[in-house]
Amino acid sequence: MIHGVIMAGGSGTRFWPMSRKKNPKQLLSLTGSQSMIQETFGRLAASIPPQRIYVVTNAEQTAGVLEHLPQVPRANIVSEPCSRNTAACIGLAALRIAAQDPNGTMVVLPADSYIDRADAFLDVLNTACAAAETAGTIVIFGIPPTFAATGYGYIQRGRQIVETNGVKLFDVLRFREKPDQLKAAEFLESGEYYWNSGSFVWKVSTIMEAFAEFMPELHSALGRIAAALGTPRETEVIAAEYERLPNVSIDYGVMESARNVKVIEATYGWDDVGSWRSIENLRRRDADGNVVDGNHIAIDATNCTIIGEGKHLIAAVGVDDLVIVHTPDATLVCRKDRAQDVKKIVDHLAELGLHEYL
Amino acid sequence: MIHGVIMAGGSGTRFWPMSRKKNPKQLLSLTGSQSMIQETFGRLAASIPPQRIYVVTNAEQTAGVLEHLPQVPRANIVSEPCSRNTAACIGLAALRIAAQDPNGTMVVLPADSYIDRADAFLDVLNTACAAAETAGTIVIFGIPPTFAATGYGYIQRGRQIVETNGVKLFDVLRFREKPDQLKAAEFLESGEYYWNSGSFVWKVSTIMEAFAEFMPELHSALGRIAAALGTPRETEVIAAEYERLPNVSIDYGVMESARNVKVIEATYGWDDVGSWRSIENLRRRDADGNVVDGNHIAIDATNCTIIGEGKHLIAAVGVDDLVIVHTPDATLVCRKDRAQDVKKIVDHLAELGLHEYL
Repeated sequence: MIHGVIMAGGSGTRFWPMSRKKNPKQLLSLTGSQSMIQETFGRLAASIPPQRIYVVTNAEQTAGVLEHLPQVPRANIVSEPCSRNTAACIGLAALRIAAQDPNGTMVVLPADSYIDRADAFLDVLNTACAAAETAGTIVIFGIPPTFAATGYGYIQRGRQIVETNGVKLFDVLRFREKPDQLKAAEFLESGEYYWNSGSFVWKVSTIMEAFAEFMPELHSALGRIAAALGTPRETEVIAAEYERLPNVSIDYGVMESARNVKVIEATYGWDDVGSWRSIENLRRRDADGNVVDGNHIAIDATNCTIIGEGKHLIAAVGVDDLVIVHTPDATLVCRKDRAQDVKKIVDHLAELGLHEYL
Repeated sequence: MIHGVIMAGGSGTRFWPMSRKKNPKQLLSLTGSQSMIQETFGRLAASIPPQRIYVVTNAEQTAGVLEHLPQVPRANIVSEPCSRNTAACIGLAALRIAAQDPNGTMVVLPADSYIDRADAFLDVLNTACAAAETAGTIVIFGIPPTFAATGYGYIQRGRQIVETNGVKLFDVLRFREKPDQLKAAEFLESGEYYWNSGSFVWKVSTIMEAFAEFMPELHSALGRIAAALGTPRETEVIAAEYERLPNVSIDYGVMESARNVKVIEATYGWDDVGSWRSIENLRRRDADGNVVDGNHIAIDATNCTIIGEGKHLIAAVGVDDLVIVHTPDATLVCRKDRAQDVKKIVDHLAELGLHEYL
């Protein structure tokens, strides 16, 4: 059987002031009327029943996740005691699934990516699952690059393995870390590279064997956690093991070493919604190039992203290329090409001890 | 005796969203800890007792004025039924003073100008009063221009009449309407011109005679109002007369025609606080050239005016030359050199019928 895992541990500081510790990016409706986690859930729920969909999150966000996904059983919301990157997160989810269905297959998706066509995603998912189930393959979703991005890892493809319903699966030649501008341009030009979107499909047994081979420390910790699952010591054991776990991504810990990794070519549009700047690509712009949401008046304002809420009115006069976001207790005004630096505000607030705004 | 009149009828739409119909510019603390009307009152109260200080305002602002100036007797707050420019406003105040003290002298000041040195203002006021009392002169306060402003009327001085304590009084050669840039530069260069600051001193009898000669329509309306003052018909008569009064400024209606007008040279710094842009000249800038008031974080923000209130946090990243003003129900983000266009927002809101933001 196929199981879905949504990784929802991110804090999304780059969407401050809308994203907060208790209301992170995945709980925001940044790209449509649903929150990002609801959209991700909807994509999985098209082919997987909610009883087999898991969410890995943290204590601070559990209440929000439950509220956004009432269809998911409470027991399927897995709460990490602290953040230890994607390998640990995936390991914890794999344990839960293995306890129910040791022969099962798992799809792992970040909660906070944007995908434009649900039907195309479903075709890719089906082909990926078939490959993972029949050949014990680790399948990674590769996004054909649309520009020379320096913010993503890249995957160089090898030989084509199969094409099903127009969906192509390739061998992986190698993984490349986030490149500089020159390398990124080369990758784009060659047509052989994909962005690593952090989405995967594998059998539970496949990923567990990979942990045993490439991340033995994590594997044995997972073994100790497995023994405590369902006992009164569960929470305590998870907390103790997590404390000592290495902070390693699944890409670095497993993907770059494993031999049976294939890349499946996404036929849908994708965006990691990495900052306020992303929003302009994912929403309709008005005639002046503005993306607006909420009560506003714009006079000679162009190419701005203006987001308010409720009855609060935002008036913009003579400004260009700004991001303006109003929330009840904080307002952001940021030059669009500095959207990455919104994170610095959050860092600064933390330094100042102004936790009420975090 | 000397009486003070504060003209406080302006709506100050250019300080939206802080200025509103019921909370206009003169009730805002734009330049210091006191509201502008409190500062104006304070300047007069240094030499005139509150019982002889009058405020002309309108029905919507009366409550606010009373709250800001509890020292002024309720009966001295004169409420205009509708706005008919400065000639009518001054006429109505003159009637009240004439009823108490027909031989009195009146000082007329706008409620919403900034003056930097109260002691220098007092010296100028004393010299002006002496001139008005002894020679039946109309004295107008002239501000030595500091730049080639196109937004003010100018007064060309003639022969010097007197100098008292370093304060100089001149004949007026002529009044000039708001000039174009070229003319303004000429006026500045010549050293013979002053800005008309809209502040005056005269005897009540002098201004009444001037109304009789140059604005007979207003003069006879004032006569009918005078007959009704203190009777049950007072409000009704004022409303009926005001309805028909010409909308004429004291400058156009009297100053430009009267022969006995003199200009007194201001020895203090003055600013009409005409828009959000003015604020940067009247408040302390920080090391990045920002003027800030309220809770804020600025990262690489320069030459901005950032004004918030209460605990609401304004975060500015990578922006220059902006005015950012937050109030509970509306936020303004405006390029500084477009500050004059804030008025357009107010016009637009009125057109849309969004009265709650006006």
